[in-house]
Amino acid sequence: MLKYQQIASDIERYIEENALQQGDKLPVLEALMARFEVSKSTITKSLDLLEKKGVVYQVRGSGIFVRRHKRKGYISLLSNQGFKKDLEGFQITSKIIEFDVRKPTQEAADNLNISQEEDVYYVKRVRYINGQTLCLEESYYSKSIITFLNKEIVSESIFDYIREGLGLNVGFSDIYLQAGRLNEEEAGYLGLEKGFPKFYVETLFHLTNGQPFDFSKVTYNFEQSQFFIQANGPL
Amino acid sequence: MLKYQQIASDIERYIEENALQQGDKLPVLEALMARFEVSKSTITKSLDLLEKKGVVYQVRGSGIFVRRHKRKGYISLLSNQGFKKDLEGFQITSKIIEFDVRKPTQEAADNLNISQEEDVYYVKRVRYINGQTLCLEESYYSKSIITFLNKEIVSESIFDYIREGLGLNVGFSDIYLQAGRLNEEEAGYLGLEKGFPKFYVETLFHLTNGQPFDFSKVTYNFEQSQFFIQANGPL
Repeated sequence: MLKYQQIASDIERYIEENALQQGDKLPVLEALMARFEVSKSTITKSLDLLEKKGVVYQVRGSGIFVRRHKRKGYISLLSNQGFKKDLEGFQITSKIIEFDVRKPTQEAADNLNISQEEDVYYVKRVRYINGQTLCLEESYYSKSIITFLNKEIVSESIFDYIREGLGLNVGFSDIYLQAGRLNEEEAGYLGLEKGFPKFYVETLFHLTNGQPFDFSKVTYNFEQSQFFIQANGPL
Repeated sequence: MLKYQQIASDIERYIEENALQQGDKLPVLEALMARFEVSKSTITKSLDLLEKKGVVYQVRGSGIFVRRHKRKGYISLLSNQGFKKDLEGFQITSKIIEFDVRKPTQEAADNLNISQEEDVYYVKRVRYINGQTLCLEESYYSKSIITFLNKEIVSESIFDYIREGLGLNVGFSDIYLQAGRLNEEEAGYLGLEKGFPKFYVETLFHLTNGQPFDFSKVTYNFEQSQFFIQANGPL
């Protein structure tokens, strides 16, 4: 973690611990520089990072203010941290339904930019929140990039392993969303009835070098899932 | 529009006109500087803006590449531009159902951070895509900030008016999403049946100074709406 990232996370913890509310003003730049014993350019980078993350907003000529939303239990659509961070205080578990190496579907191959002859790791799992079904997830990992996975990794955080175990840099992602109706199989895994509403999300994850490595399709139990996005201003 | 924003939009048009695809490499920094006759710091700012917008991705030591997704007709959840830009080639129209000054609901007042004694502009409209219902929208505009609206403005782009007519700076927003079932009223306006799935979005828009000014609740016809988010890497 670089210095400015460390300071950013310290400021985030300070906001948390002091239970600061939306609109509360942070100390001025000079005070932050003195408190953390860093240069102006470092503190500026920390604050820019926090602004991107939706933790603060900066008003020119006026100061830096805390940004918080009031709703609990919403899943962030922009975090690649997995649910664990958003749903702190909730118990999240997984059950693996299928896990193997196989040839991708046409759809997965197209998204991953590979041929249908190449291998992928396929993972299908149901995730639970406080013992109730949260979602059914199917993921296709390009095996030429994600060279190794096993059941143990798949039952924990796959992304932690990709970053730390494989040393890969996870970059941008394309996320597609829509509402629909549960088919029979989805309904079965989620313990709901066929035809019930679903919140459906497809994500194509890329490395920082632009290579797509994971195409995932997630069907949420609409009764257990709410989502949020902290968007920055118009660009 | 500032210089770097102008250059960014020129580069975006260049990508568009040359039908560049995901992964295509842009000219090197020096070539872009020469082409647009600007300094390195300006071109760097332009590229950072385009990266935030999801138009390019930068690979350290390797270059700047085009970022595009392949799906047409998806509505961007992060653009405050309204639908018009995402759905180019589709015909988008609106019908105003209700428009007046009133006292907010408790929910709207809480979100807008005002008391229930203060006035809001209330707008309820149905939007259509190629003649089919796209969504039912209810919005509450804080009248102390959005001091004037009329039917003409409301039937066009309200946000264009807020920026250009009122000279206000639209900043960050909090977006909440979930799937659910249409109630009778929603189904009626959307021409669907009660109990059908819905894609439901609440947004709280703020000025750049942090003041919330618009709380909107939008119920989408799930058969006509698909959404996308171009997310940047983990922060």
